[in-house]
Amino acid sequence: MNLLLKKLWTTLACCIMVLLANADDRIVNAADFAKYQRPDDATPMVRAALAYCREIKAEKLIFPKAVYRFKRDLAVEKYVFMSNNDEGLKRFVFDLTGIENLEIDGQGSQFILSGFVSPFLLQDSKNISFKNFAIDYVRTFHSEAKILSVDKAGMTVQFSKKFPYKLDHQTLIFTDSTGTVYPWSDLLEFDPIKRETAFMANDFWVGANVPVKELKPGIVKLLLPEVKGTPGNVMVFASAFRLVPAFNISNSAGIRFNDIDIFHCGGMGIVAQNSRDIFINHVRVTPSPGSGRVVSITADATHFSNCSGKIVIENCLFENQKDDATNIHGIYSKITRVISPYEIEVELIHKHQFGFEYLKPGLEVEFADAASIVTFAQNSVKSSEKINKEFTRVVFKEPISSQTKPGDVIAAANNYPEVLIRNCVIRGNRARGILLNSRGKTLVENNIFHVPGAAVLFEGDASFWFEQSGVNGVTIRNNTFDNCNYGVWGNACIQVGSGIMKNVRAKSRYHKNISITNNTFKIFDPRIINVYCVDGLVFKDNKIEKSNSYIKNLPDAKAFVIENCSNVTVDGDDDFKTADHVKK
Amino acid sequence: MNLLLKKLWTTLACCIMVLLANADDRIVNAADFAKYQRPDDATPMVRAALAYCREIKAEKLIFPKAVYRFKRDLAVEKYVFMSNNDEGLKRFVFDLTGIENLEIDGQGSQFILSGFVSPFLLQDSKNISFKNFAIDYVRTFHSEAKILSVDKAGMTVQFSKKFPYKLDHQTLIFTDSTGTVYPWSDLLEFDPIKRETAFMANDFWVGANVPVKELKPGIVKLLLPEVKGTPGNVMVFASAFRLVPAFNISNSAGIRFNDIDIFHCGGMGIVAQNSRDIFINHVRVTPSPGSGRVVSITADATHFSNCSGKIVIENCLFENQKDDATNIHGIYSKITRVISPYEIEVELIHKHQFGFEYLKPGLEVEFADAASIVTFAQNSVKSSEKINKEFTRVVFKEPISSQTKPGDVIAAANNYPEVLIRNCVIRGNRARGILLNSRGKTLVENNIFHVPGAAVLFEGDASFWFEQSGVNGVTIRNNTFDNCNYGVWGNACIQVGSGIMKNVRAKSRYHKNISITNNTFKIFDPRIINVYCVDGLVFKDNKIEKSNSYIKNLPDAKAFVIENCSNVTVDGDDDFKTADHVKK
Repeated sequence: MNLLLKKLWTTLACCIMVLLANADDRIVNAADFAKYQRPDDATPMVRAALAYCREIKAEKLIFPKAVYRFKRDLAVEKYVFMSNNDEGLKRFVFDLTGIENLEIDGQGSQFILSGFVSPFLLQDSKNISFKNFAIDYVRTFHSEAKILSVDKAGMTVQFSKKFPYKLDHQTLIFTDSTGTVYPWSDLLEFDPIKRETAFMANDFWVGANVPVKELKPGIVKLLLPEVKGTPGNVMVFASAFRLVPAFNISNSAGIRFNDIDIFHCGGMGIVAQNSRDIFINHVRVTPSPGSGRVVSITADATHFSNCSGKIVIENCLFENQKDDATNIHGIYSKITRVISPYEIEVELIHKHQFGFEYLKPGLEVEFADAASIVTFAQNSVKSSEKINKEFTRVVFKEPISSQTKPGDVIAAANNYPEVLIRNCVIRGNRARGILLNSRGKTLVENNIFHVPGAAVLFEGDASFWFEQSGVNGVTIRNNTFDNCNYGVWGNACIQVGSGIMKNVRAKSRYHKNISITNNTFKIFDPRIINVYCVDGLVFKDNKIEKSNSYIKNLPDAKAFVIENCSNVTVDGDDDFKTADHVKK
Repeated sequence: MNLLLKKLWTTLACCIMVLLANADDRIVNAADFAKYQRPDDATPMVRAALAYCREIKAEKLIFPKAVYRFKRDLAVEKYVFMSNNDEGLKRFVFDLTGIENLEIDGQGSQFILSGFVSPFLLQDSKNISFKNFAIDYVRTFHSEAKILSVDKAGMTVQFSKKFPYKLDHQTLIFTDSTGTVYPWSDLLEFDPIKRETAFMANDFWVGANVPVKELKPGIVKLLLPEVKGTPGNVMVFASAFRLVPAFNISNSAGIRFNDIDIFHCGGMGIVAQNSRDIFINHVRVTPSPGSGRVVSITADATHFSNCSGKIVIENCLFENQKDDATNIHGIYSKITRVISPYEIEVELIHKHQFGFEYLKPGLEVEFADAASIVTFAQNSVKSSEKINKEFTRVVFKEPISSQTKPGDVIAAANNYPEVLIRNCVIRGNRARGILLNSRGKTLVENNIFHVPGAAVLFEGDASFWFEQSGVNGVTIRNNTFDNCNYGVWGNACIQVGSGIMKNVRAKSRYHKNISITNNTFKIFDPRIINVYCVDGLVFKDNKIEKSNSYIKNLPDAKAFVIENCSNVTVDGDDDFKTADHVKK
């Protein structure tokens, strides 16, 4: 009882303190913790400032405008599974775990990190705002080289001093002044004039064991006859892992971004899982100014797995990141065993989903067939036990459907997020623009897309990525699709790329109600729409302008490929009359 | 209060159940859980059996004699820091965390594991006995090849089907039937006839990026002019990591081993940290019978960091493991900052010590100078805060000595274990025999050593391994030192190898009271004793026999090198009169 009284007293005292404090007292100035700084390392200063923020339940943490440098040495360490990134025991400068109602205002500061340390971790955080700062790294997680020449034996490239490397036998290893190794795994060519992936450039999944020969310091020949490229272009040596996203958000709610530059990080820019209400405004993912780099961050600009509430992305610039601008989806687990009438064992298949926890008691769950991804049953979780990062045992409230068999998948069946993507510019990155896979109301308007693959992709599969999609109510209006598909990652500006086996597409209407109106399509490649398994497709009042910006390498391609769809209204430009391409 | 009553009732009910149960009820037969088995995987059976053992507080878990196969798929997962092995998110078949008073009796069974999964994890476990089983793996973590030929361009080797590999470009990658990769890092030559490391063989720290060429399936040429070896001998491709020890013991007490064979694992055999009272009897570390392998396990047979109580190793065979038979030591942390008169920041330097936690409130701590490892102060921990796996902040009860400066080290200063090593055979492994570094009473008797380095090594340093030593009372008697030092890991049968800088050795007496009596030294190499910084050394009544078992490559070496020692009594064999070698 003594303990109880003591706890009560502490809580009471704390409440009184908070009540007595006036607003100014609850604004914490990071500069007040400057004594904790180390040479070139403000990390202990941030730890001390955040400890104080927790103590007084601060409303704001402000950073006087300056350049703050952060090292990993004294950063907070946690094992983190972050959907669509790589898991690991990681370091974080700002550990905001459990913090509520805090604004972090950089006042125009630059946060410059070095090595394998992420700036922000949010776990069970609520109402957190980020304002007015830039994130950059001393040494990038990828490397870039100028292509000097290509011959039968391979490609000769030149690295600037920004991308230090060493050779181990004939193997190329990227490093920095501290000796840290930056593993790489594949190659992609960029056009440094257009500041985008080179025309129709492929990823070369060559692995880091490519034999190389150093011709002179900084000049290296890749002894790889199969790698092609154009002298003068930039070859990007991609980071092998996504270990260092900028903003790592789990089980959080009410997260706001305003005026944030993410010049670099080693993973996704903003990635959220099991979180709700995320508002991203004036966020710019772009290569560090003056760096001359062709790549900004090493993976998607933003990404959302099993999120809910509202996801709003407005007034953003997402350019030159090494993957898509966004992907908003659920996650499927594969059924490995039916244990009892109420119980199954499921497995997370893709390594970037390992450790993802969502099967909480009370969750409504859908059961779907893997080939068609068609939902055949629904049930509610009674309890679940995580066996390890791959396997979970789930007990349901009702008997599971007799149709259920190993190989089927399950996923969360409610609380899909509403999505708004408005006034954004998306360009020059690898792969696609936006991957829309929420079943919530989705509005995409007034954006400009100039991407090498599909600008808008509807995904979902139960065979490789295990990402849940099946949209239901998407409006795409007043956007400009500016010469998309100059690369290899798509077959139309707006595309369904769901993993629905061809033999079952006729009976699947996985996606529903997609409306595409009042957009402008500037195209050198005739392919505008390529979709299947959609019930309810409207394409009208769009403007289609031919362009000569790129070589017309597919002059005979069809503008509209619409297969296994129902309730389709396509009102195309005269040049692209397409009734004959529409199969129902 | 309801909750409290409920808890009380549960506890009471549980006590009554345990009291009522007779002994037989508390013996659990793993076979009763056979329904949980999967094809080739008894792991879920063990999980279920152990859950039941916890529930009824079982005294015994017995396994009817059989071959049990274990995969990692459904094993327990934990992030584990294990001293002198590699940290990681790991899998364990038997998770004995928190279990007390349990005997696991294999009744002669074989536990055959595959992939990166350890058999046993003990954390906060008490009075656990292991009895009568063997541990082996389907695919070893290292690989072995027969040397076919050596020429100017490199070495050609042949792998049997037991060591599957693939090539990635010109790089050699070891794998298995599941596609799992087994990283390697260095090479060591073994003599398959003598079943030991080849005479004076060196480790080749070449890394896994060695370029290779496959001449025929199974026959590979290492394009490495510097690697030497004898055709007919076996080249061992060492495992790059120590991720999979067999017995992982932390914060535990009263751990007993009887009749256990450890034929293979991917790390140390039995490794314990912060634990007390460990009794190892009739444990055999030896290559799987009939395997034809020259290597048993991939690192030390046993290893103890900051242990206390008694460590008893009797009647054991430790052969052909890829490192020492044992090492019993403490761990030094390096002082990186003196923060206040009571507070310091310390760092764990060696990566195999990262995450090691020992600075608990109340711990007596010594402060030592790094160059001499001489203790200059003692203090008691008031509190400590782990910053991350490398750094810890420590507050002391008394003001810290004014002598303290960054670069000095601290370590636990009490509860050193008593050590008994008796009736063991130690042979054919890489490196040394036993590393004695406990300040507790240490008795080594009736053992046979045939190792390529020093049979007995006294270590300790604050510059590389950061292992605390400084023995005080070691008796080495009635042992046979059978032709040791046929390799490169030592300079005498009994050796001090402490990292005490030469310029301060005169004033350091780091080790105390070492008595070497009634042993037999069979030697082809004259070097018997090589020590420094010892106060109290007795060498008497030992028998020294010359041997022709190996080439006498150092005929003029001194039998006794005793420098910077005090109170030395050396009563050598006539052939090895050594007074002239003894410098005091």
